[in-house]
Amino acid sequence: MKLNQSTDMALRIAMLTAASPARTTVDELATQLALSRSHVAKVVQRLQRIGVLVTVRGRFGGVAFAEQAGDLTVGQVVRAFEGDDEVVSCEQSGCPLIAGCRLRGELRRAQAAFLGVLDGVRLNDLVDGPAGPLLLRIGGLASGAGERPPEDGR
Amino acid sequence: MKLNQSTDMALRIAMLTAASPARTTVDELATQLALSRSHVAKVVQRLQRIGVLVTVRGRFGGVAFAEQAGDLTVGQVVRAFEGDDEVVSCEQSGCPLIAGCRLRGELRRAQAAFLGVLDGVRLNDLVDGPAGPLLLRIGGLASGAGERPPEDGR
Repeated sequence: MKLNQSTDMALRIAMLTAASPARTTVDELATQLALSRSHVAKVVQRLQRIGVLVTVRGRFGGVAFAEQAGDLTVGQVVRAFEGDDEVVSCEQSGCPLIAGCRLRGELRRAQAAFLGVLDGVRLNDLVDGPAGPLLLRIGGLASGAGERPPEDGR
Repeated sequence: MKLNQSTDMALRIAMLTAASPARTTVDELATQLALSRSHVAKVVQRLQRIGVLVTVRGRFGGVAFAEQAGDLTVGQVVRAFEGDDEVVSCEQSGCPLIAGCRLRGELRRAQAAFLGVLDGVRLNDLVDGPAGPLLLRIGGLASGAGERPPEDGR
């Protein structure tokens, strides 16, 4: 059982940007997270639409973690990226048992329990205490972003 | 978020065989469930190893739902087929955030809640009441298995 790749990326980006008040860019995120730039660009766009990231305009423009986004939950991000998908593909696979299947309902209940746990985890919870600075150090080490000039807000 | 294809198939096979006390074969299961024979063969072998199915020897040999397997849970089947896999691929994807990541623990908690729900669902629960005969009718209609001779045990 795996989350979609986009969901996985969205959570990493949300976590890394939550750790930093400074703006970043798609290029920086792609480097810091060792992910493909085009995928990161798509995921960032989506994260902007659901209010996790905001656009920062101007010479040092880019994206930044939205002011209130720390109160959004991991569950909200996962739901936004996974959509209404079930953990099994009953219709798409043309399963003939569908009319008499009780399993599907149980799997839906299990999925709700999964999301229920993540509904209790705010994005800020992921970077509280020592986790935030540690994430920044890791991100900075990976990309050289730690060497940014001080006017960058870090 | 999707279960592995093998897990999905294993659950369908467990459900269909739980509905019937009669023996069946890999070929019949593949036809009834509209799945590839080679995949069904692999999954059946695994289901035998974990005690869901037993081998029926002789002229009308094949496999059958094991006598005590009704008390096995959906959670046990899912665990057996999904292994220890997490819902994200932290190591395989080489995520640089791994050392400072709190998300992973939360996702593990969510996964445990998912499995916890399925630990409460016995295979017999899936075929209690009208669900069992309905599943058999569906399976039978799809394959003609409903026309089996009476000595087949149905």
